[in-house]
Amino acid sequence: MKKQQLGPCITFFPQPTTLISTLGEDGRCNLMTASWGGIVSKTPPTFGLSLHHGRETYANIRRSGEFVVNMVPANLAVEADYCGLKSGRDVDKAAVAGLAQEPAQLVAPPLLVSSPLCLECRYLQEVELGDYRLVIGEILQVHAAAEAIDPSGKLDAAGFNPLVYLGGIREYWSLGEKVATAYQDGKKYIP
Amino acid sequence: MKKQQLGPCITFFPQPTTLISTLGEDGRCNLMTASWGGIVSKTPPTFGLSLHHGRETYANIRRSGEFVVNMVPANLAVEADYCGLKSGRDVDKAAVAGLAQEPAQLVAPPLLVSSPLCLECRYLQEVELGDYRLVIGEILQVHAAAEAIDPSGKLDAAGFNPLVYLGGIREYWSLGEKVATAYQDGKKYIP
Repeated sequence: MKKQQLGPCITFFPQPTTLISTLGEDGRCNLMTASWGGIVSKTPPTFGLSLHHGRETYANIRRSGEFVVNMVPANLAVEADYCGLKSGRDVDKAAVAGLAQEPAQLVAPPLLVSSPLCLECRYLQEVELGDYRLVIGEILQVHAAAEAIDPSGKLDAAGFNPLVYLGGIREYWSLGEKVATAYQDGKKYIP
Repeated sequence: MKKQQLGPCITFFPQPTTLISTLGEDGRCNLMTASWGGIVSKTPPTFGLSLHHGRETYANIRRSGEFVVNMVPANLAVEADYCGLKSGRDVDKAAVAGLAQEPAQLVAPPLLVSSPLCLECRYLQEVELGDYRLVIGEILQVHAAAEAIDPSGKLDAAGFNPLVYLGGIREYWSLGEKVATAYQDGKKYIP
């Protein structure tokens, strides 16, 4: 496959689309769109979130020590994009975009009612990387859409309808079809 | 949306599917499947990769200071899954799965010929997180499939055909359809 060099840049995908809930000093919920986030440890379950140090969300996390990662479903792409364009210092983004909230179980920032997968996190540490901060938080509780879980406990991917972000291309896409089962289909190459 | 609690766990998605190239002490290329990875800074472009400290890939990165992140296209899901099941200590996974390599530009580990997006990285630092290590590397060069770039330089998402991993569900999925344009469609909520 012939390749073209793009130079050092941040073109990389697929990425998740998330809305990060935090509480401001006034106790109001702020939402920030984030795609630079993911699992970074299983012992214990830990989430890494990278964001610009000037963001209101960063200030809120440092002050309160808590945040919630709300996975964005494909039907909320426009609302999520909006929450990445404005600052919570200027406007109540959740109210403008019509994103209702409900209480979390172990932290003060709320879950988004319409998010099918929400992770409650407590700040552990951070890494300074130029203008960005890689915030590392322990995952205290995970909430998943009940309608996407069958009676045996199996999660139905299509039921979550996750929105995929393509960093560098600046597009949001839906999931297509299941291609393979992990930890299973690769066994074909094991004699 | 009614939610069910899963407890503290690593169920989170969508995630990228990547194959990490490193060089062993004997100079042979090792490939490790990774989905715990993503961009963590723009100043400069930086990649974060989390992996178990016992992995051969971790030893190779610590010894050589270099790695390449190869994005996996949907047509290589089975091969990528295989590379997550076996250790490079026991078998030449690239040879078994038929994954040809070509030289990188600035680092010693190779690019995968059939990967449409490859990031050359140099080790900067790491964070110890239980049994895992969050390795942080500067992105020195990015290679993208020439056939997925139009004459104006625009990247065509479908041309990359990225494989999406659903952590916790343990499934690989393809991309579906474009849902929205980032930094654009959210303006609908701005008066």
